[in-house]
This record gives sequence, C-alpha cells and structure tokens, in this order.
Amino acid sequence: VKLLITGGGGFVGARLARTLLARGTLAGQPLRSVVLADQAAPPADLLADARVSARVGPLLGQCTALADEGFDGVFHLASAVSGECEADFELGLRSNLDSTRALLDALRARQQQGGPAARLVFSSSVAVFGPDASVPLPPVVADDTLPAPQTSYGMQKLVCEHLLADYSRKGFVDGRAARLMTVTVRPGRPNGAASSFFSGIIREPLAGVESVCPVGADVRHPVSSPSSAVAGLIAVYEASREALGGRLGLNLPALNVSVGEMLAALEQVAGPAVRARVRFERDERIAGIVANWPSGATAARAARLGLVPDASFEAIVRQYIEDCRARPDAAQTLKGLG
Amino acid sequence: VKLLITGGGGFVGARLARTLLARGTLAGQPLRSVVLADQAAPPADLLADARVSARVGPLLGQCTALADEGFDGVFHLASAVSGECEADFELGLRSNLDSTRALLDALRARQQQGGPAARLVFSSSVAVFGPDASVPLPPVVADDTLPAPQTSYGMQKLVCEHLLADYSRKGFVDGRAARLMTVTVRPGRPNGAASSFFSGIIREPLAGVESVCPVGADVRHPVSSPSSAVAGLIAVYEASREALGGRLGLNLPALNVSVGEMLAALEQVAGPAVRARVRFERDERIAGIVANWPSGATAARAARLGLVPDASFEAIVRQYIEDCRARPDAAQTLKGLG
Repeated sequence: VKLLITGGGGFVGARLARTLLARGTLAGQPLRSVVLADQAAPPADLLADARVSARVGPLLGQCTALADEGFDGVFHLASAVSGECEADFELGLRSNLDSTRALLDALRARQQQGGPAARLVFSSSVAVFGPDASVPLPPVVADDTLPAPQTSYGMQKLVCEHLLADYSRKGFVDGRAARLMTVTVRPGRPNGAASSFFSGIIREPLAGVESVCPVGADVRHPVSSPSSAVAGLIAVYEASREALGGRLGLNLPALNVSVGEMLAALEQVAGPAVRARVRFERDERIAGIVANWPSGATAARAARLGLVPDASFEAIVRQYIEDCRARPDAAQTLKGLG
Repeated sequence: VKLLITGGGGFVGARLARTLLARGTLAGQPLRSVVLADQAAPPADLLADARVSARVGPLLGQCTALADEGFDGVFHLASAVSGECEADFELGLRSNLDSTRALLDALRARQQQGGPAARLVFSSSVAVFGPDASVPLPPVVADDTLPAPQTSYGMQKLVCEHLLADYSRKGFVDGRAARLMTVTVRPGRPNGAASSFFSGIIREPLAGVESVCPVGADVRHPVSSPSSAVAGLIAVYEASREALGGRLGLNLPALNVSVGEMLAALEQVAGPAVRARVRFERDERIAGIVANWPSGATAARAARLGLVPDASFEAIVRQYIEDCRARPDAAQTLKGLG
C-alpha cells in the first residue's frame, strides 16, 4: 500500500502513522510507503523510518502534486480546528473546505485518467451535530441524527462528508467519513480548538500546572482516547463498503462522560493533589460553543465493525500516563505525579 | 426594496419577477428595482418594466459586481438541472456549488464592509433526499428527514443549504433555503432535468404532440404548480426568522401524486384524445434517477407560514391551460385541445 496521511505531522496523524508502521500492513497488504503531508515537519521518529517521507506546506497548494504520486489510500486528517474556524471564517473555508475539495478533485482527475479510485478516510467530527429550532438536539446523537452544525468547523466537516459521498457514488474515490469524538488526552500545548480544555484539565495537573476548566462540572461530552480514535480510522479504512452500511458519515465510538466524572477519574488514578490543580472559571465563548455540542453519542455502525468505546475515563487517563512515560520529556509531562 | 433574482430569465425566476412586479411590494416595502441575472436575456415583457434591468452572463463571474450593487434582497434560483449535473460533474460543481459560494462570499464582503446583511432565499430541492443503506428513504419525506442525496445536483443543493445556514448564523446574510418540489407544468421545450417528463406528459399532448413517459404509471412524486412554487418562495422571503423555525432548509408544499393520477387528471380536463398521446417507454437512466427520489413530501414548517399544496392535479392542468391562453403562441401550445 502506498499511503498518504494529510495532517500526518499532527497528534492523531502521527499516532496513526506509528500504529500502521508497527503493524506493517493495511487492509491485508504490506505497507510500502507512507507520505506525511502537513504544514510542519513530522516528528523525527517517523522520518527515521525508511518507508516514511514528508511533504511540508499548506495542503491546498499540494493537492495536484500529491494525487500524481498515485496513492492507493489516503487518510485525510488535515484540518483547522473549531476555535480557529470560528474566529477566522476564511481560514476555515480555505483549510477545511477548499483543501478537501482540491484533494478530491486531484484524486478524481487521476481516476479519470485511468487510475484506480483511491480509498480515502476523511476525519469528520461530532461537531456536525447541533441544536436548531426546527430539530432539537437529542441528548445522545446517533449515526442517523439530522446534523445541524452550530460552528463553521462543523458545517465544513458536514459539507465535506456530502462531497465525499457524491465523489464516491460517482466512483472517483472510495470515500468514507468517520466522525471523531473529542480525542483526549492530547499531549503538548493547548490548541485553538474549543474542546482543548478536555485535554488540558487532565494534562496540565499531571504536569504540575494549574488548569482552568471553562465549563461546569455537569457538562457531558462524547470522548475517545487517542488509541481508540486511531483504531476507528483504521477499521473504517479496512471495512468493505457493505460492512460500512452506506455512504453517509458514521460516528466513531464515544465514551459519554461528564467533566465531573473526568476529574473524579483523574483523582482516582493520580490522587487528590493532582485533581486540586483544576479550578472552574467560566469562559462564555467556550461555554457557548460547547453548549451547542451533543452531550453524548452512539455508534451503531462502528459497533458492527467491531469498534467499542473506551472502557472508562480512568483507562483514558492511564493511557496518557503510559504514553508520557515513553517520551523523552516524561519527567516534565508527569511532574505533577510527584 | 432593491432585489436581485438569479436565474431571473428562467421559468420560475421570470414568473416570480412578474408576480412581484404586479404586487409592487416585498416584505411590506415598495419594490424599487429588480435585477434579473441569467445566462440569457429575460423575457421582453419583463424588460419593458421600468423597474427591471438585466445582467446577462454566467453568474460565477458576476458575483462581486452584483454584490457591489447593494441589494436588500436576493432570490438565488440560478442552477444547472439534475440531468446536466449527472452527465457533467464539473458543470454542476461550477454552476451550483461554486456560483453559490461566490455569491455568498460577495454578499459577505459587502456586509463586512459595513453594509446590511442581504436577505437571501435559496431554491433548494426535494432532490436532497434519497435512500442510503444506513437510512432507508421514508415514502414521504419531512422537513427533518435526514438528507442523503443520490444525485450530484441533490448533493450540491444540500451543501449550499449548509453553507447558507452558516453564513446566516455568522450574520453575513439573512439566508433561507426552500426546497422546491418538482414544478409542473413547465412551458416550452423539454430540458435536461431528469424530472422534465413530469411536465412533458401534460404539455406535449395539449400541444397535439406525442409524449413518452419514461417511468411507470405507479411512480409517485411530490409536485407543485408554478404559482404555488412562486408563492412559497415569496412567503419564505417575507417570514420572520422565528416563523421560519430554524436555519435549516424547509420543504415547500407538495401535491403527492402518481403518474397515473396525473394522466387521469389530464384526461378529465382535456379529454381522452389528449390523454391518448402519452405512451409509456421505460428509460433506464431517467427511471434510475427517479427511483432514488422520494415518492412524496410533507411541509410542516411551510404550513405554519400559511402555505398549502395545490388542491388537485386537475387544478394544476387548468393553471397551465390558462397560462397558455395568455401567451402569444396560445394556438400552438394548446393545439391538441382541438
């Protein structure tokens, strides 16, 4: 398999690449090469693998050249995040909508020149769902809940789902859209995503740093661990069209959990001193965005692919701690554990 | 009101313009000027009205100049039709998706320069609905049925609905998407729409011409008369945001009728000799597209605006005959009536 991962330098993309390189196969075929396309260079450990190469720069300008490389498969993860898209409307249109369209058109051009249709997994988002006066948001959204995005990010993801379904119906690509839940715990620094605090309230206290939670403890949200998200993307890639059960986007499995339950899990795994580093201070901008997100999700189609939610938020916290211990800066990232 | 009608030279657009010019007001304000933008020049009777001017050419290249004219309101009806979009994928993307995006971006630029947000009614379509393995199509689609387009045309309309909702949420425009049912009886020649025969099987026999029906008599379909479609577009323009009940697209009222019932109505109004000019000859391409369309629609949100379906298909046939009698070529268009 000759594989492209857009956003391959990002957290989920790099983790996906590591997982696939360790497996050595995708859809039963040997993984021959992996191209990581991103704005920034991918992590050094990935570049050290002889199968890996990087294409650094904005995706929009690279699509035609990328398609000419003749990939068998694509994971299209590159995206501006929700907070950025809400603050900068044009950035979101360009990074999320125009780039995806350009990638689809480049792959279509190659298919129309006689090449095989590339298999493409698009990372959509639970942010496609939201409340509208005409359709109140159910507390728990399902695969077939009517999407009504309340952020530009969610709108862009939904529009790309529909573009992908139609390019697939026409045979230009073999596309599949998987809606990621909020992936937590992300390492590193807070990013522009409105959901960034769902990682921050675990990551910062474990590093010995105070963290502010911008929403109330009763806010419920569908989350998944990084490893569950990666497993979901791979399963959606490997599924037959029949097993996927349709061309529309499908939800990946969610652990539906409240902020209070997340903090209780942190305390159970890491102790009360760590938990005590989180304080609540409402941020109206963040709280307003989150209030329009579903408080939970089901994933019936993903379940039929054998995918299950994370067992508990304690397990998610433990996964993060184990991941940190494997990193060179482990002492810093887990300084709060004492 | 300074008004723009894209597709203003087309059948629905010209009829809308005539209706509004006769009323002289829109949303309680005097209609000062009406600009008709279309690929071809609008009908002469419209150009004879001092309030009317034309902008002839492809919409995509005109959007910035149009937005600079500072319209209070827009009816965006310009569109490539379903059969064309299925045959020529790039034409559909350009005419339906890129043009709408360019229009929205031009109106946004003007609003961001300090102008008021234009009110914009977008003509979406019942073709947004279709069957998918994950969501079987209900026999009758409602406002909140999950769209799963099975044509590129339907996908483009749905994508534009979501763009419009987000541009409206951000305050760039005051947008409303109204899903037109199949408008029948259209005058003139068959066009590239897969639904063209829904007019042809009435229009041609009335003109004394044989007509071929490409689908079976049991095919059911949601239709509306031209005057109902125009009344729906105006009501959606004039409704308050609250009365509209949300930002998502809404169905316009449908008369749900079978091809057999349409032909029975033709016979009742025009006699058995006219009816006998229609013969059935299955066209797999057309039948395949139509099989993926809903067989009926409800329109609860439109009903709350006071909109009702046409009373009967007989009434729709009579409306067409009366319209023909007002035309200079009446003798030709009704030659079959004897």
